[in-house]
Amino acid sequence: MGNYYGKGTINFDNAPSVHSYASAVGPKEGQGPLADYFDYIGEEAALGEKSWEMAEVILQKSAFRSALEKGQLAETDISFIFAGDLLNQCTCSSYGIRDFDIPFIGLFGACSTMAESLALASVFVESGLAQNAAAMTSSHFCSAERQFRMPVNYGGQRTPASQWTATAAGCVVVAPRKAPPYVRAATFGKVTDMGVKDVNNMGGAMAGAAYETISTHLANTQQSINDFDMILTGDLGKVGSGLLIDLFKRDSVDIARVHADCGLMLYKISEQDVHAGASGCGCSASVLCGYILKRISEGKLKNVLFTATGALMSPTMSQQGESIPAVAHAVHISAE
Amino acid sequence: MGNYYGKGTINFDNAPSVHSYASAVGPKEGQGPLADYFDYIGEEAALGEKSWEMAEVILQKSAFRSALEKGQLAETDISFIFAGDLLNQCTCSSYGIRDFDIPFIGLFGACSTMAESLALASVFVESGLAQNAAAMTSSHFCSAERQFRMPVNYGGQRTPASQWTATAAGCVVVAPRKAPPYVRAATFGKVTDMGVKDVNNMGGAMAGAAYETISTHLANTQQSINDFDMILTGDLGKVGSGLLIDLFKRDSVDIARVHADCGLMLYKISEQDVHAGASGCGCSASVLCGYILKRISEGKLKNVLFTATGALMSPTMSQQGESIPAVAHAVHISAE
Repeated sequence: MGNYYGKGTINFDNAPSVHSYASAVGPKEGQGPLADYFDYIGEEAALGEKSWEMAEVILQKSAFRSALEKGQLAETDISFIFAGDLLNQCTCSSYGIRDFDIPFIGLFGACSTMAESLALASVFVESGLAQNAAAMTSSHFCSAERQFRMPVNYGGQRTPASQWTATAAGCVVVAPRKAPPYVRAATFGKVTDMGVKDVNNMGGAMAGAAYETISTHLANTQQSINDFDMILTGDLGKVGSGLLIDLFKRDSVDIARVHADCGLMLYKISEQDVHAGASGCGCSASVLCGYILKRISEGKLKNVLFTATGALMSPTMSQQGESIPAVAHAVHISAE
Repeated sequence: MGNYYGKGTINFDNAPSVHSYASAVGPKEGQGPLADYFDYIGEEAALGEKSWEMAEVILQKSAFRSALEKGQLAETDISFIFAGDLLNQCTCSSYGIRDFDIPFIGLFGACSTMAESLALASVFVESGLAQNAAAMTSSHFCSAERQFRMPVNYGGQRTPASQWTATAAGCVVVAPRKAPPYVRAATFGKVTDMGVKDVNNMGGAMAGAAYETISTHLANTQQSINDFDMILTGDLGKVGSGLLIDLFKRDSVDIARVHADCGLMLYKISEQDVHAGASGCGCSASVLCGYILKRISEGKLKNVLFTATGALMSPTMSQQGESIPAVAHAVHISAE
């Protein structure tokens, strides 16, 4: 089993493989710059379902089924599913997974779920507890928007710092070591609270957690940013990415050189009216399971530190005047 | 590391120890039959806080701090915290844990969280990824009631099948094998949907998941109910416990002989006006971390299959006419 490098960080000695992966997105994401990389693009937001929640369920099931198919696996080959999502009670995960006869380990990490689930699936595979383990998450603009902010049809004005919750899902199947991409290490983050109270500035709330987790990973593994082609955050967007770069500047580290953010990759920012960029569990999930893992598989990216960022924002707590805590989890995925 | 027994079940070869444990409850629970076993009993529902949510945060922090103290551990001795709760965005876990400098792995399993977190903490300890790992959860009658059903002050009539969400928290610290209680095995359950749509009948919704997980555990480990002093479910209450017994009768198994339910142990059912019993993440957590682990430590119980049961109930999905899926996770805790 992997070594325990230091607080929060796991080294996978016998790094498990990303066996297969798939993504499913909505129409807006299908008009973005990564359209060619997605396995399924829905034609309209409801995907033919009677509710947005059920549409999101469809996205997650579609990503899971595509990942199985692309990996030539049957449902019975999957030992455990690690999944969660943004909706209250992680609805889309449990309502999706009830159709499968597979043990379910439910997670809540908000938009950090893709990294959290991928790290845990890797722990189970490396330790021999799972033959194959699936890691999965999703989000949907309409289901998230009405839960966290405004009724969608109300058409509330969006602030410049606000981000667009992706209608998207991603699924990775992790298997014992065979071929790249490999999962080489992971760091589970701490809850970090920057004191941000603006529910329209998720990037600002999450930047501190991303900084904390990336710094911890580099320190614990005795690596520097030079060991990575790309340090990829989940959904900091314009505001959060700027803050992350500033936070690293205090340590005299120019992270901008290798930093990319899924929230700035999913849409044509200037054309698609998404203000500070994309967000949501499905943002980092679909960018990872669409574009990034393909680039790593092709050897065009060698070492990526995938750091999904989650704002643990509760409307109830915000209404009580509380600030927004955040968490980030990092997974080192490698072509080597 | 533990063997992989069969689908969903983990055997801990070198069974980790329950190093310490603690519970914290509200005033109603402090008037119940297990009052003598709790580490902290609040005097009133708000515990001196300005909101019920913050009161629940206090319960979880209190249970965590007591578990550290009883185990003579410092915060720095804990490698990871596995936690979640019933509230949207698992609020009470993240707002509690932000005060600690410890990596956080957020879970959502509704009332199955105590078993889910305990099983994952055991995996991390047994595999050498954690020195000590904490497993923790909570619930609060008032915060849960207004989120899932009615505004508390409205005083809505409660149905006979309804259960009383416990105001309670529990925390277990798992450490490498040294002394009993030991965590010997665990089974992660599947999402099981019995088609129950009554949001006041959580026991009915969960009975099928409990049956599924207990049966799977016994089959995978080649054990029978005779190998246990107690098969303890989380919060099936009167209705769900009856259904569980009936489900096992179909297999000619008289589980009633060894079955107990935390939901029927926390209150004086006939006197405390709780209808079908207790429920909530904090129900099984406080009964486990108050009464049961003490009985196992003293050798009065030898082998307990602790099966926490979670109704993955979403008010949004219920309003859309959907049934309530459920999940149960089982952990074999032993004095031997």
